[in-house]
Amino acid sequence: MHLHFLPLLSRVAVCGGTHGNEMSGIYLVKELLKARKKVMEDEEEKPVSVMLVLSNPRAVQQCRRYIDTDLNRCFTHATLSGPMSDTTPYEIIRSRELNTMLGPKGSPGAVDLVCDLHNTTANMGLCLISYSDCDWICLHIFRHLQANVPLRYIHFDVSNKESYSLDSVGKHGFAMEIGPQPHGVVRSNVYTAMKAGVQHMLDWVSFFNSGNVSEGGFVDVFTMVKRFDYPRDSETHDITAAVHPQLQDRDFCLLHPEDPLFQTFSGETLRYKGKEPLYPFFINECAYYEKGIALSLARKRRVMIPAIRVQTEQEEQSNEQRFTSEEEE
Amino acid sequence: MHLHFLPLLSRVAVCGGTHGNEMSGIYLVKELLKARKKVMEDEEEKPVSVMLVLSNPRAVQQCRRYIDTDLNRCFTHATLSGPMSDTTPYEIIRSRELNTMLGPKGSPGAVDLVCDLHNTTANMGLCLISYSDCDWICLHIFRHLQANVPLRYIHFDVSNKESYSLDSVGKHGFAMEIGPQPHGVVRSNVYTAMKAGVQHMLDWVSFFNSGNVSEGGFVDVFTMVKRFDYPRDSETHDITAAVHPQLQDRDFCLLHPEDPLFQTFSGETLRYKGKEPLYPFFINECAYYEKGIALSLARKRRVMIPAIRVQTEQEEQSNEQRFTSEEEE
Repeated sequence: MHLHFLPLLSRVAVCGGTHGNEMSGIYLVKELLKARKKVMEDEEEKPVSVMLVLSNPRAVQQCRRYIDTDLNRCFTHATLSGPMSDTTPYEIIRSRELNTMLGPKGSPGAVDLVCDLHNTTANMGLCLISYSDCDWICLHIFRHLQANVPLRYIHFDVSNKESYSLDSVGKHGFAMEIGPQPHGVVRSNVYTAMKAGVQHMLDWVSFFNSGNVSEGGFVDVFTMVKRFDYPRDSETHDITAAVHPQLQDRDFCLLHPEDPLFQTFSGETLRYKGKEPLYPFFINECAYYEKGIALSLARKRRVMIPAIRVQTEQEEQSNEQRFTSEEEE
Repeated sequence: MHLHFLPLLSRVAVCGGTHGNEMSGIYLVKELLKARKKVMEDEEEKPVSVMLVLSNPRAVQQCRRYIDTDLNRCFTHATLSGPMSDTTPYEIIRSRELNTMLGPKGSPGAVDLVCDLHNTTANMGLCLISYSDCDWICLHIFRHLQANVPLRYIHFDVSNKESYSLDSVGKHGFAMEIGPQPHGVVRSNVYTAMKAGVQHMLDWVSFFNSGNVSEGGFVDVFTMVKRFDYPRDSETHDITAAVHPQLQDRDFCLLHPEDPLFQTFSGETLRYKGKEPLYPFFINECAYYEKGIALSLARKRRVMIPAIRVQTEQEEQSNEQRFTSEEEE
């Protein structure tokens, strides 16, 4: 495969508190803001501009996932451009502010990279979640981080048009997800792992921007293919079973046909009736009870990523001209 | 020590959902209600009447700890008898309903035993929490359960006048606390352990009511002596550190002077400066961030409990007469 040339990543956004009770990202963004204040005086301007964003300050203040509706589902083009009124939910108003600040989504003015920090109650370790399995920037960041920390790459196969999360506002973007951590709680080990992940990500961006070649190679990508809800009572809609103890905490361990899936509250075991062995993740995530998701299942694929290098200024200019003429068509 | 004679435990209340996001107790009470409905037809009346109570249905419905204020702090005599108005918080209104249903607190009409089901994000395993270290009923239940499941007994040294929790409404009472489980999540192993705990408790009540002698002996009691808040920013009141990774999840492991207590978000270690080794518990409990409690510390003591047996009817009558004459004084 040939060397690919990609534009400079001059503007990066690190966002926390998109969900107001996912504490690692909230405290990390606050800490980075504090640290920045301290070093402002004696440091020169960095080659990368890093915006630090507390995405949903009202939800953070109340330590709730959201006030009116899930902010991280508000960034579709449809929602961002829909009508507004006095009764528009807070998060829809806030999504437009963030789109103005970091986007507009899909435009040349959008930030180059959005890293949105999340926590899960599932035992998923550190993961990057992205809509693309061929965004070489995201996959090279993944590869660089994986050389330093245990990490997985999850791919949600959703079209650009339907992409709904904050990280979709940037030219490149991903959620950095880490668990297990109860919502509303910060665990020191989880906080520290996220801090290291963000630092390695920024290190790679500097490395890339400085003109270094990032070598190509293979990476494993988990593409989400299926979701299961909890068994529920048809009248009350209450769940009638929990994730089976033999499945709980076994995110990314291959689930085979007939493996235990749920244990009902009366003690019965329900099994996986699918025909294909798949990788479970987001097992028993707190916020997904209301979304009707007990766990997600992924297929693992090996993806070849090419070597990349930042474009020279000349290459960039020619690209910009091409972009402009495309725009004019 | 002599054999003690204690009144029959004819009315027992098992309560879940006192905190609306502590899911094991909620699903257990719902399951027991369902099971009762099923067996109603073919079963004879039990020697014990077990009331199953969903304590805070509005909070359960919203999957939040509480709506206006923490229900499990509303059962002091002062709050139960305070003035009411249009702006009285929902939980204060509800605490009176529960006091009418299960109490009145401190009166002869109160239920004999309240078992209130709770979850914690702390790695505490199964615990009974009580205001007394000399309530032989609670301690015998503890001893019976401990013979069947791993279990600890926590004693909050609070006077009867100041006791504030739902379980204080019964003649005897305790919280059955179990963790770790994130709030808003049910973990099958935690649910099953709680179910077993409740079953063993009810078994012992039947055993006791049938006139059997429960032998005396020694039990270990953890008496709460101290609490620590997280380090906080003096201006924003934000926490500036998390529980140290070496302390996290080590509930009931002796904490020695100079052991790590917190790790600040910039990476510094803060140490325990007390002079006495003590047992930490409720380490990093989600709901206690707002209460300013990062962990509690306990002293362990060995308590001798006497053999007990239920009173004969005759003994009970003579006791009732004594109680009545005390009332009349």
